[in-house]
Amino acid sequence: MTDTVTRPSGRLPAQLRDVRIERGYTRHAEGSVLVSFGETRVLCTASVENRVPGFLRGKGEGWVTAEYGMLPRATNTRNDREAARGKQGGRTLEIQRLIGRTLRACVDRAALGERTITLDCDVLQADGGTRTAAITGAYVALVDAVRLLQKRREITRDPIFGAVAAVSVGVYRGVPVLDLDYAEDSACDTDMNVVMNDGGGFIELQGTAEGHAFRRDELDALLGLAEAGIGELLALQRAALEK
Amino acid sequence: MTDTVTRPSGRLPAQLRDVRIERGYTRHAEGSVLVSFGETRVLCTASVENRVPGFLRGKGEGWVTAEYGMLPRATNTRNDREAARGKQGGRTLEIQRLIGRTLRACVDRAALGERTITLDCDVLQADGGTRTAAITGAYVALVDAVRLLQKRREITRDPIFGAVAAVSVGVYRGVPVLDLDYAEDSACDTDMNVVMNDGGGFIELQGTAEGHAFRRDELDALLGLAEAGIGELLALQRAALEK
Amino acid sequence: MTDTVTRPSGRLPAQLRDVRIERGYTRHAEGSVLVSFGETRVLCTASVENRVPGFLRGKGEGWVTAEYGMLPRATNTRNDREAARGKQGGRTLEIQRLIGRTLRACVDRAALGERTITLDCDVLQADGGTRTAAITGAYVALVDAVRLLQKRREITRDPIFGAVAAVSVGVYRGVPVLDLDYAEDSACDTDMNVVMNDGGGFIELQGTAEGHAFRRDELDALLGLAEAGIGELLALQRAALEK
Amino acid sequence: MTDTVTRPSGRLPAQLRDVRIERGYTRHAEGSVLVSFGETRVLCTASVENRVPGFLRGKGEGWVTAEYGMLPRATNTRNDREAARGKQGGRTLEIQRLIGRTLRACVDRAALGERTITLDCDVLQADGGTRTAAITGAYVALVDAVRLLQKRREITRDPIFGAVAAVSVGVYRGVPVLDLDYAEDSACDTDMNVVMNDGGGFIELQGTAEGHAFRRDELDALLGLAEAGIGELLALQRAALEK
Amino acid sequence: MTDTVTRPSGRLPAQLRDVRIERGYTRHAEGSVLVSFGETRVLCTASVENRVPGFLRGKGEGWVTAEYGMLPRATNTRNDREAARGKQGGRTLEIQRLIGRTLRACVDRAALGERTITLDCDVLQADGGTRTAAITGAYVALVDAVRLLQKRREITRDPIFGAVAAVSVGVYRGVPVLDLDYAEDSACDTDMNVVMNDGGGFIELQGTAEGHAFRRDELDALLGLAEAGIGELLALQRAALEK
Amino acid sequence: MTDTVTRPSGRLPAQLRDVRIERGYTRHAEGSVLVSFGETRVLCTASVENRVPGFLRGKGEGWVTAEYGMLPRATNTRNDREAARGKQGGRTLEIQRLIGRTLRACVDRAALGERTITLDCDVLQADGGTRTAAITGAYVALVDAVRLLQKRREITRDPIFGAVAAVSVGVYRGVPVLDLDYAEDSACDTDMNVVMNDGGGFIELQGTAEGHAFRRDELDALLGLAEAGIGELLALQRAALEK
Repeated sequence: MTDTVTRPSGRLPAQLRDVRIERGYTRHAEGSVLVSFGETRVLCTASVENRVPGFLRGKGEGWVTAEYGMLPRATNTRNDREAARGKQGGRTLEIQRLIGRTLRACVDRAALGERTITLDCDVLQADGGTRTAAITGAYVALVDAVRLLQKRREITRDPIFGAVAAVSVGVYRGVPVLDLDYAEDSACDTDMNVVMNDGGGFIELQGTAEGHAFRRDELDALLGLAEAGIGELLALQRAALEK
Repeated sequence: MTDTVTRPSGRLPAQLRDVRIERGYTRHAEGSVLVSFGETRVLCTASVENRVPGFLRGKGEGWVTAEYGMLPRATNTRNDREAARGKQGGRTLEIQRLIGRTLRACVDRAALGERTITLDCDVLQADGGTRTAAITGAYVALVDAVRLLQKRREITRDPIFGAVAAVSVGVYRGVPVLDLDYAEDSACDTDMNVVMNDGGGFIELQGTAEGHAFRRDELDALLGLAEAGIGELLALQRAALEK
Repeated sequence: MTDTVTRPSGRLPAQLRDVRIERGYTRHAEGSVLVSFGETRVLCTASVENRVPGFLRGKGEGWVTAEYGMLPRATNTRNDREAARGKQGGRTLEIQRLIGRTLRACVDRAALGERTITLDCDVLQADGGTRTAAITGAYVALVDAVRLLQKRREITRDPIFGAVAAVSVGVYRGVPVLDLDYAEDSACDTDMNVVMNDGGGFIELQGTAEGHAFRRDELDALLGLAEAGIGELLALQRAALEK
Repeated sequence: MTDTVTRPSGRLPAQLRDVRIERGYTRHAEGSVLVSFGETRVLCTASVENRVPGFLRGKGEGWVTAEYGMLPRATNTRNDREAARGKQGGRTLEIQRLIGRTLRACVDRAALGERTITLDCDVLQADGGTRTAAITGAYVALVDAVRLLQKRREITRDPIFGAVAAVSVGVYRGVPVLDLDYAEDSACDTDMNVVMNDGGGFIELQGTAEGHAFRRDELDALLGLAEAGIGELLALQRAALEK
Repeated sequence: MTDTVTRPSGRLPAQLRDVRIERGYTRHAEGSVLVSFGETRVLCTASVENRVPGFLRGKGEGWVTAEYGMLPRATNTRNDREAARGKQGGRTLEIQRLIGRTLRACVDRAALGERTITLDCDVLQADGGTRTAAITGAYVALVDAVRLLQKRREITRDPIFGAVAAVSVGVYRGVPVLDLDYAEDSACDTDMNVVMNDGGGFIELQGTAEGHAFRRDELDALLGLAEAGIGELLALQRAALEK
Repeated sequence: MTDTVTRPSGRLPAQLRDVRIERGYTRHAEGSVLVSFGETRVLCTASVENRVPGFLRGKGEGWVTAEYGMLPRATNTRNDREAARGKQGGRTLEIQRLIGRTLRACVDRAALGERTITLDCDVLQADGGTRTAAITGAYVALVDAVRLLQKRREITRDPIFGAVAAVSVGVYRGVPVLDLDYAEDSACDTDMNVVMNDGGGFIELQGTAEGHAFRRDELDALLGLAEAGIGELLALQRAALEK
């Protein structure tokens, strides 16, 4: 494991891409955020509905869930439209389950009341890291939706405790690097998606060795990079929410 | 039939919404246009693939087709995601068939060669008239894709003859008006989508009386409005393509 | 635009095919009509059920809807059975939406009460114009079903106001002609489906230019033909209903 | 087991319904038969295609298969349209597998050559016994299609050996009866569908005890009735084919 | 029809395979039986749920139903997984309808109360006769589930009257034989599945001639074999239930 | 973080359940293993087919993939059968993607040649940890299938390098524990699935905090437990393969 490498983008190993979080991107949703991690752009909307799934009915608790999609030409070559194929692929289901699970980890569902907040994360343009961008942006859309509920006095207690953000890390040409773009991702031996909260706790960890299996010391280095990167992302979320 | 009415938007009966056509909105597609008709925003991408559907194989002709989608929260209340429901609805299929058919009307498929150009029209925000905005924007994306093929010398003859644009017209509180927004559309007795080319010919006409049936004189007035409106849209397309 | 042409069937430009409307074709449905436009034969049944779709429940209003199908060998070459393929195609959905919409245009849904009338239009043999035949026949089946409800004193007020009928028109070898059969339809540059009521109002207008775009004067000529043809169809419906 | 009973239709225990076999009912199919067993009416078309399913490709053999459908209002109350529900039900699949299997039992597939004959059996009106009517009618449609192939000299040897016909039998109020109509079928303890060839052999036997299990002597009586009834049906098929 | 033949397994014509019925094979289900007919092994579980399908709600009656599946590699070559293909095939639906129907034939549904018992029959290893093994094993699982309900005093009257078992018979090289294994089944001209109760009554009879049609005397011989074989199976069920 | 806790099963924190690996459980598959982790029982079969998916055709490489299923009553309450519901759920897809990915990590696909090995992992009985049991058992089935190919001299080089096994770890009542059963899994704040190879490298890491987020020291403790547990599992695999 060395620690110098020339990344395709020219970034340093521990450097995030240019991250932007644009609130109020569309007008109908209770929360609407366009998040960019470099060339990756994901539209995250939060929609509030006054009903809950069957298994929660009558329990006085709310629900937070997510759906994920990619426009057919968000990528370099066109992918089939999932609506036309008639089903969501395994990758899509896996990602939307991840987004929903991680955002529920910062919500007090009793304080939310019998409401569902659906986070739709639609990738307009993809360049690696769409799921981590989606989580990071969806958190901001969720906060905006909850603030609106508070402003309308529909809820009294703030159901959101803590913040969550996500980033990918990987071993690129033997060097641990932060926030992989597509060029790195496809060449990477190992990559890991890390979701953390603002208390420094891990919410989710998903590491996959595509080439050689990763050793414990590599894992430690990757986790260190992720912790630092997520610290920056949490700061960017706070700054966006203060505007 | 009177000729004065206060439109919800304050527009005059024959006035289009503010129309913007933004080329190169995303980076991967051969053509990528964000078209706005007021608050209606549709991302239109043109993707070129070197294959044709089965029924055209070996005939030396190309194909132009379209797919349409709406992000779940493009509208005022959230709609189910078609990919999650497992099928495209009748309205979606109807619109994408319309877009494909009208754009094929300005393409010489032999000059295109054995290629498929797919126009993906995804509504990011809806406020009435998504299908007419989609046709108007998709035409520009199509031209961009074809120009790229010409620039790469993959095709020699220009397969595009003429231009197409589309607009809706309707009878709102007894007055024929141009380019309905959602507030008008839902209150309208009659509405019609008109697609024309730059030779003044009609490509497609779809009129529906939702309340009282429309008389021949109303129809004539609506067609007049549409002809003028489409003239303006064709000029905006040309201007966008000249940038 | 000339006005003489030899149609494949030998008909005059403004001449309908031989149209027959046979009531009581099958025995179980509240209304059952076999309608023939020449060799095109469509079985239209009207089924009454004492329930309404979810969005109307408890509003005291009824619903009228349609489903369309084509037997696999109604056409010259066999088509896949939609039930076996597992979904209805875009064309099918488009047609059944059209039939339902146009028949709702002559029904007072409050007078119908909380009932659904479903019009099943199944093409036994196709030779062009199946959707216009279906609308024309389904209207008669609808009237029969409503009469039965009145006879059984389940409803008191007649929910049907006015009649609707439909015909296709097109430009065949440069000449506007009425009621296209398959041979004409496949050779036609332009064709239009027109639905009108017995007050001379337009319910629906769907024109498509498959070859060259149609000019305003062609459109006017087509509308004139349609108005006359629909007049004849409305008379045939009345005659059938008086038997 | 007594041997007198008043059947709802007034028929004798061993009496078939009025059976009609109408050839050339529609015009496009290579064979097209409307078969009526009393009020049960099934349209059976035979379609010839010059291809075979994957598992037979290149083996020089043909294939005979069937599809079955019921118009939504063929029955007393409306059934959902299978194409709209997105799948064929278990009963439909079971019946169409039965029809295909029994007709293959009288075809020399090598003599047919690499062709598929699809028998579409669509029930226009149902009053019990649709599958037995379908088999009996489909056989005639199949013969017509094969004769056409012979007339066009596309095949030389006759691929059809023997004839097949089918009938239902059941124990109604303790008495074995032939050719159940709907009123009997729904009240029957036991019913059995029998398919035989003109050599007196059994092709298929499907007996189900819905109420009390049937004894061996009842079974024997039912088989006797079926043998006689099928003899009559085979004669009716021959007569229809000689016209 | 001779009466000697060398069966691939060396069995006598009237000899069952080695049949084993193992209760309590898995731990969660109310009844769980691994049934083996030679190398055919089917896991049959009975699951009790306190609800009934919509058509029975509020009638005070219960329901017994079955589902059938085959593990992808239960057979000699791998079959597609039905869950992955997105639908159950016709054969599967046919078999599970048969299993449900025959088991309902020995249940007093009023005595069961508003409960559903679902019999899941999953083939772990197939060597012919999976449906007859499934019926024979599912009966034992059903009895176990009912006994548990009685033990828990959830029901008072025993809803099961009589027993059911099933076996296949066929004509192999001209000789009627009992309980076909895969090698025989694929070479058989005729085979029949027979379901009987312990009163000697026939519940279901499904005979298919795959090669030459079967004569009445062959049918009689097959029924005789089946009656004897089912007698043995009923005894094995009783022995298993007494353990 | 304490280090003593009473586990529901009475096991010590670092103690695996009783693990059994039974080869040759069914007879048709090239490899067939019943793996038990305590009461969790998964049947893993390896099927070899002489074809590869489209994207690999002609590249001289093989493919290893997995499918996962759970019998409806493998669990405490019955789950819907995925084949009957018409699609595999998100959890199923996620697990089968994981199994396939981790097993490909120990296969040299060029040495395998143009073959696909499909690992079907079907859960007969579930008590937590089905995916880790599946991976551990599927590896043994895969080795058996490859050995058979070698024995038949269909391949020359051994395509398997290294071994893989998997285990779950979690924080139960504040204490890191190994190999969670269902009772622990449902009460756990955090759980993680770890897949490693016999070189001590990590193939896959999937950690999820369901209650409180996990700290870095907890993560380290969990990884330590997993490393030891996987060491034992690898030894059990070797022992099973030597029998």
